[in-house]
Amino acid sequence: MSRGEGSGEDRLIARHFRPLAKHPGALGLADDAAVLTPPPGCDLVLTTDGIIAGVHVFPDAPADAIARRALRVNLSDLAAKGAKPVGFLLAVALPGGTTDAWLAEFVRGLSEDAERYGCPLLGGDTDHTPGPLSVSITAFGMLPAGTMVRRNGAQPGDVLFVTGTVGDAALGLMLRKDAQAGASLTPAQRNHLLMRYLQPDPRNVLAETVRTHASAALDISDGLAGDLTKLCRASGVTAEIEAAQVPLSDATRALITREPALLERALTGGDDYEILAAVPAGKAQAFRASAHAAGIAVTDIGLLAAGEAPPQFIGPDRQPIAFARTSYSHF
Amino acid sequence: MSRGEGSGEDRLIARHFRPLAKHPGALGLADDAAVLTPPPGCDLVLTTDGIIAGVHVFPDAPADAIARRALRVNLSDLAAKGAKPVGFLLAVALPGGTTDAWLAEFVRGLSEDAERYGCPLLGGDTDHTPGPLSVSITAFGMLPAGTMVRRNGAQPGDVLFVTGTVGDAALGLMLRKDAQAGASLTPAQRNHLLMRYLQPDPRNVLAETVRTHASAALDISDGLAGDLTKLCRASGVTAEIEAAQVPLSDATRALITREPALLERALTGGDDYEILAAVPAGKAQAFRASAHAAGIAVTDIGLLAAGEAPPQFIGPDRQPIAFARTSYSHF
Repeated sequence: MSRGEGSGEDRLIARHFRPLAKHPGALGLADDAAVLTPPPGCDLVLTTDGIIAGVHVFPDAPADAIARRALRVNLSDLAAKGAKPVGFLLAVALPGGTTDAWLAEFVRGLSEDAERYGCPLLGGDTDHTPGPLSVSITAFGMLPAGTMVRRNGAQPGDVLFVTGTVGDAALGLMLRKDAQAGASLTPAQRNHLLMRYLQPDPRNVLAETVRTHASAALDISDGLAGDLTKLCRASGVTAEIEAAQVPLSDATRALITREPALLERALTGGDDYEILAAVPAGKAQAFRASAHAAGIAVTDIGLLAAGEAPPQFIGPDRQPIAFARTSYSHF
Repeated sequence: MSRGEGSGEDRLIARHFRPLAKHPGALGLADDAAVLTPPPGCDLVLTTDGIIAGVHVFPDAPADAIARRALRVNLSDLAAKGAKPVGFLLAVALPGGTTDAWLAEFVRGLSEDAERYGCPLLGGDTDHTPGPLSVSITAFGMLPAGTMVRRNGAQPGDVLFVTGTVGDAALGLMLRKDAQAGASLTPAQRNHLLMRYLQPDPRNVLAETVRTHASAALDISDGLAGDLTKLCRASGVTAEIEAAQVPLSDATRALITREPALLERALTGGDDYEILAAVPAGKAQAFRASAHAAGIAVTDIGLLAAGEAPPQFIGPDRQPIAFARTSYSHF
């Protein structure tokens, strides 16, 4: 048994993590807690999501990519809820043999993203573990009181929008496991899919657009089909989505054209980190314009309808697609 | 690679964790984030501390005790900073073979303590791991803006107070590893030390007393000697503490009487989760009275002095005790 706050940890924090603690409330990581003074009239949005090597990322993934991913999956939640990032807490458990060079790369990735997304380190906890690397981040966001966009506010008639393209990360993971699976792609297409898997691109620049227009939203971390099911269930609505309406990248479209069965993987595979938003029909045009102004592609994939039935995707044969599973799960 | 938010996790959360989510901001754990509306004029205090089986607790410790410990080490930080608990986020990584019965016990411990300390579950993240059990908690506290008690506010002349007794947990750990080491104790004394190790007793009822009287404070998680060193270094002060002034339980005193070398273990061993507070001399009497009213024993162990030298403990021979190490560390 040993403690995680001894002088060894203090040195490690001073060397690697203190430079990231640019938020005044982090107190230079020199105290037992951080302090946040929320602006009057604001709510804080809290989200926590972790990464375990061998479960959520390949253990040999670049250290900076692991750090970015750990922060970005949390930033993605803030974006989908309409919140502006405030800062984050980091709990990291390092396996034996973690080198200083690895840590320096990890911190570089974290630092660059903290800067890029305006989300500084507020505090944390560092330990060694006999198990795999684990990085758990709690991120804080801010928005005007009472305006967090929930899963459960969608209404029949709302327009469903999705940002970016769907399925790239799942097909990138497939290529990561089996390089042959991408033999028909151009190098640029292969690279696109692999990067989409390795490094989510959270849509934080769209947060304010979502907050002011969407009736419900969530980020697509478990696959479009599964996350749409969650939104529909929480809101008590249903939907029939034409699969042909779902935005796909060139690379994903090329793979599906060769092997139509991959459509299922694209619609149910995880790690897209796009935003799925329900927008009242009267606000749809303004939502589209605001997203355009923010530089984020959004696609209208269909309408929500009254009903309790699970949402369905309609295939090229005009029949509902029967998925073997609607989302990733390891339970 | 798999995702932690699939339907299996949803079921697990619904069955085990949803009943704990009594804070309205937890949204019944049915959304991607929690929401906190901080009262006007308040700061939020944030702390995160994790437990890994085999590192911070014995893997065969009772499930409810692991849960309590994970929450209590964070509550202890809030207490030492003078903050009232608001709620917590839980990130748990479950090893293969975790049973429903184990989870039910874990949740029972967590639930009872959440109730006892007024600190409800706000949200979390559940995963399976190929490694050992890991429980990482982020706790939130609240206090009037600008009043968090830091490590660095102590002044020469301040009185050093410590709550409860020191060293019990370290000697309890010794007994846990080697039952023979406690052969000279009564069963009640043995049990006292073992329980002090197994289950910290955070001093949250003292938070308001600390906040209104202390110039600096921290909780003793890494041993009195090490944590006093941190307080002195942060505040730019020093101290000479007579070891005989340090409050010891009967059990700890009995062991040290038999084996004087154990004094070092008592002063440097971790896991006490008592509060060490520096109190201006003019407030010392009021601090004592306020602690008494709260039902917490506090002991004056000496005065802080001007100087940059590390604090020292003076032994029975009137000489400074030379510790082999001043605090636990596994780095």
